[in-house]
Amino acid sequence: MSEEVKSKNITWHEGHITKEDRERLNGHKAAVLWFTGLSGCGKSTLANAVEEALFERGCRTMVLDGDNIRHGLNKNLGFSPEDREENIRRIGEVATLFTDAGVIAMTAFISPYRADRDKARALVPEGRFFEVFVRCALDVCEQRDPKGLYKKARAGEIKEFTGISAPYEEPLHPELIVDTGEEDLDTCVSRVIAMLEAAGMLEA
Amino acid sequence: MSEEVKSKNITWHEGHITKEDRERLNGHKAAVLWFTGLSGCGKSTLANAVEEALFERGCRTMVLDGDNIRHGLNKNLGFSPEDREENIRRIGEVATLFTDAGVIAMTAFISPYRADRDKARALVPEGRFFEVFVRCALDVCEQRDPKGLYKKARAGEIKEFTGISAPYEEPLHPELIVDTGEEDLDTCVSRVIAMLEAAGMLEA
Repeated sequence: MSEEVKSKNITWHEGHITKEDRERLNGHKAAVLWFTGLSGCGKSTLANAVEEALFERGCRTMVLDGDNIRHGLNKNLGFSPEDREENIRRIGEVATLFTDAGVIAMTAFISPYRADRDKARALVPEGRFFEVFVRCALDVCEQRDPKGLYKKARAGEIKEFTGISAPYEEPLHPELIVDTGEEDLDTCVSRVIAMLEAAGMLEA
Repeated sequence: MSEEVKSKNITWHEGHITKEDRERLNGHKAAVLWFTGLSGCGKSTLANAVEEALFERGCRTMVLDGDNIRHGLNKNLGFSPEDREENIRRIGEVATLFTDAGVIAMTAFISPYRADRDKARALVPEGRFFEVFVRCALDVCEQRDPKGLYKKARAGEIKEFTGISAPYEEPLHPELIVDTGEEDLDTCVSRVIAMLEAAGMLEA
């Protein structure tokens, strides 16, 4: 696609590098891996471990999680229903921008509502969105409680905490389910990679 | 950096791919190129042409402009002063996420206020933010008027239009100034690339 802009006898020829160009350069397809599950289920840990495995294969990846989103792009959002929806909306849009750049974008947020996850799915082309349900029994998550959030939620110090006082809507048709209470990290990583290979996202 | 999370005898070892890892893989440094200037000055055209030149060298790049931001991430923002500020804030945050991913991110927005541009600069490490003032005389921009916006602004159909009825604050210490009314596109591109080379962002 090209467009010419003329002014003062200066010709400007406009070109665009496409997602397909970038995928050829990278040697893999661009995709969104959307990790969803309860607090403490291991979404961020799994996403980072998958990233390590993909990086070793030379893939271009990016993990979006609370650490780099809540203190930056979404620092002006709280935890009201509207703000939670806007939080996930922005994350979906940013993940999509990363796929436009040819990257495998991974998001690691509780993202408890089906409707919000489906909106994120709708932003990327068919077959490029992989919803990974990081299943883990609530009592296991609560026992781990890496950030002490369950304790605070039980004490009433945190309102509307997913799994305790706010709902988590399990995915109905996720591309993959892993159970971090039953499977070790390497197994979970291997299963995510196998899913991407089977879908033709990675070079054989 | 690693952290161990233990639960039910399952050991989860957490690793993180760093920006430096990604830069080694990519063979260039991550940076933000912030193109600023009047409507019609050629920011987007220049950014896309620079991207083409960088892509040919095997660099990983991403252009953020009105086409992919205003209809996506920032579609819930208008043109009030607060919304303009939030628009540029989000763009700065997203550009920063791209640099975290090892990418050379280019933004092509009027971004008329110094304070907003300086906030974007503050998000990335020293030496990684390149403000490129895409200078072009107002009458030349108005003569080009590729989207018919100046005509509408003169007719009063668009309020607070930069350069006509709203201010444009020229950069005081930009890393580079190009003049698209006087220099052709190839020259402007070469000067941007030379700036990146001189700053050690690209492999020699």
